Amino acid sequence: MRRALDLAAAIGAPGPATYPNPRVGCVLLGPDGSMIAEGYHRGPGTPHAEVDALAKAGEAARGATAVVTLEPCNHTGRTGPCSQALIEAGVARVVYAQSDPNPVAAGGAATLKQAGIEVEQGLYAAESRELNRVWTRAAELQRPYVTWKFATTLDGRSAAADGTSRWVSSRAARLDTHKLRALSDTMLVGTNTVAVDDPALTVRDLEDRVVGVQPLRVVMGERDLPDDRRIFDDQAPSLHLRTRDPRSALAALWERERRHVFLEGGPTLAAAFLEAGLVDEIVVYVAPFLLGAGRSAVADLGITTISDAFRPRVRSVDVLAPAAPGEEPNVRFILEPPQENQYRGEQ
Amino acid sequence: MRRALDLAAAIGAPGPATYPNPRVGCVLLGPDGSMIAEGYHRGPGTPHAEVDALAKAGEAARGATAVVTLEPCNHTGRTGPCSQALIEAGVARVVYAQSDPNPVAAGGAATLKQAGIEVEQGLYAAESRELNRVWTRAAELQRPYVTWKFATTLDGRSAAADGTSRWVSSRAARLDTHKLRALSDTMLVGTNTVAVDDPALTVRDLEDRVVGVQPLRVVMGERDLPDDRRIFDDQAPSLHLRTRDPRSALAALWERERRHVFLEGGPTLAAAFLEAGLVDEIVVYVAPFLLGAGRSAVADLGITTISDAFRPRVRSVDVLAPAAPGEEPNVRFILEPPQENQYRGEQ
Repeated sequence: MRRALDLAAAIGAPGPATYPNPRVGCVLLGPDGSMIAEGYHRGPGTPHAEVDALAKAGEAARGATAVVTLEPCNHTGRTGPCSQALIEAGVARVVYAQSDPNPVAAGGAATLKQAGIEVEQGLYAAESRELNRVWTRAAELQRPYVTWKFATTLDGRSAAADGTSRWVSSRAARLDTHKLRALSDTMLVGTNTVAVDDPALTVRDLEDRVVGVQPLRVVMGERDLPDDRRIFDDQAPSLHLRTRDPRSALAALWERERRHVFLEGGPTLAAAFLEAGLVDEIVVYVAPFLLGAGRSAVADLGITTISDAFRPRVRSVDVLAPAAPGEEPNVRFILEPPQENQYRGEQ
Repeated sequence: MRRALDLAAAIGAPGPATYPNPRVGCVLLGPDGSMIAEGYHRGPGTPHAEVDALAKAGEAARGATAVVTLEPCNHTGRTGPCSQALIEAGVARVVYAQSDPNPVAAGGAATLKQAGIEVEQGLYAAESRELNRVWTRAAELQRPYVTWKFATTLDGRSAAADGTSRWVSSRAARLDTHKLRALSDTMLVGTNTVAVDDPALTVRDLEDRVVGVQPLRVVMGERDLPDDRRIFDDQAPSLHLRTRDPRSALAALWERERRHVFLEGGPTLAAAFLEAGLVDEIVVYVAPFLLGAGRSAVADLGITTISDAFRPRVRSVDVLAPAAPGEEPNVRFILEPPQENQYRGEQ
């Protein structure tokens, strides 16, 4: 299973490479425990890990044990169900780590058992879940996982009184943001941010070049926008969702098979997502300087007393060393709102 | 000199133990380099390090080399000048690390040279300066060194909309604050903080017991205060300075031989100190939660555009692990405003 997890991870970082699918690895072992074949999933439209391994094994798969990081799927999507492929190949035993959290694809284990195959579950389940952390949570919630990112000064400001905000974060923090953007498949902002700040919302490298698979750039809101805004350029696809409602925006994105939304909109949009229980992760960059006045990084959340403060769990806190001369270290918090408050999508 | 520095540090942490004096160590060496005697300063009214060592050496000091961390003083305060004591003891050579930054006490080296003593300066000067960092800076500025401490949420709030603020910081951050308070000789707040928050401003331990040498508790402002406020209790001395002007408050405290003010007043008082160039160090505790509204941790500083932001240097940034169950890590920044902006006291 350790080897199968390594194979699953071989595709690289989680995110657009496999979305809307998870990262999965599979190892086929002979009755004597020898390795027959390996496989992993390379993304939508390509064979699932089990099928990849079975194709390499051919007749040798008969009587073998399939060790796979995720419960074999039971439905026909872009490819046929893996449970059926394993049965047809004559596999004798299936050991899998994580149960399929997706109600549409689940049921593979039951199908295998009905066909007389010995099935075992749970080995390294936590590791497999961690391997596809965001994908798993999205499947459980039946909506895209939402990461809200904001940058703030030490006194909670995202821009000065005259609206200037370049740059609040250090270069190191901005580079880090691009790394995190690259793990998502969707960038999301409101119409106001596009109108006022005109962000490109692309994934760029150290030299500010657009690199890698680009997330879909989405702007939500009812307001019309001029088409000279950078979000509508040809660097990456974009989409204007004509709604101000976070739930319907996420439902529309889920329908488009989006799994991970990176929310970089202004404080008002973020507050709407937060209040709707639609933020799963918060990434905050703190820059160690003061403005004293100017735009607040976080909008009014309707909290009036300290005991009602919004207190997320800290998943990590890291000091980002300066990446440019004359800059100061920034701090990155990654926070998790309480899961019980998180709104589940309706399908 | 290494040994002399260790002796100087033997008194413990910098602060009230020796204030208004610095930490100083002295080693007397014979002509053959053998150690004759050691001494260090234990605080106001007790012998200076040189005199401490000379007293132990007696006649053996004749022809010796005195290795001392600070330039021997030249003036008569609570004790006589060390330069004179070294001359009278017949010391042949004086090696010292740091020059005396205090214009009143300086001139010891010149006096020694005039008496025919060989004088050498500079060995471990930076280390001695660091040993008495706050004391040295205060002597240079001819006013107390000012540390401004504030605690904030991730969105720059120090209290909720209804004024409640217990607790913004974690227990670990509050304990850390008490450690830093204990290094200062003066706590300073405004009348408004005393009226509204009624802080005790004492140094307390894990069990909330008042411990150690207590800094002087000072409240500044013209407003009258009821004498049932905790700052006026018998746990530590206190003082009401009837002024709203930061410069005259610091001048009054300097006259009272205060060397290190720990400013815990509200945002308005802190902004007045900041704008007057009277903040030498800022300690910020960031608690990873959100309020969305409520009292700002930092008042309006008159900054209107991002390029005018107040950008201090980061001396350190540390993650404070939780000290109580259910709490989250806080982050402590220690910042230094640009020295060229710092106002010098007038004598």
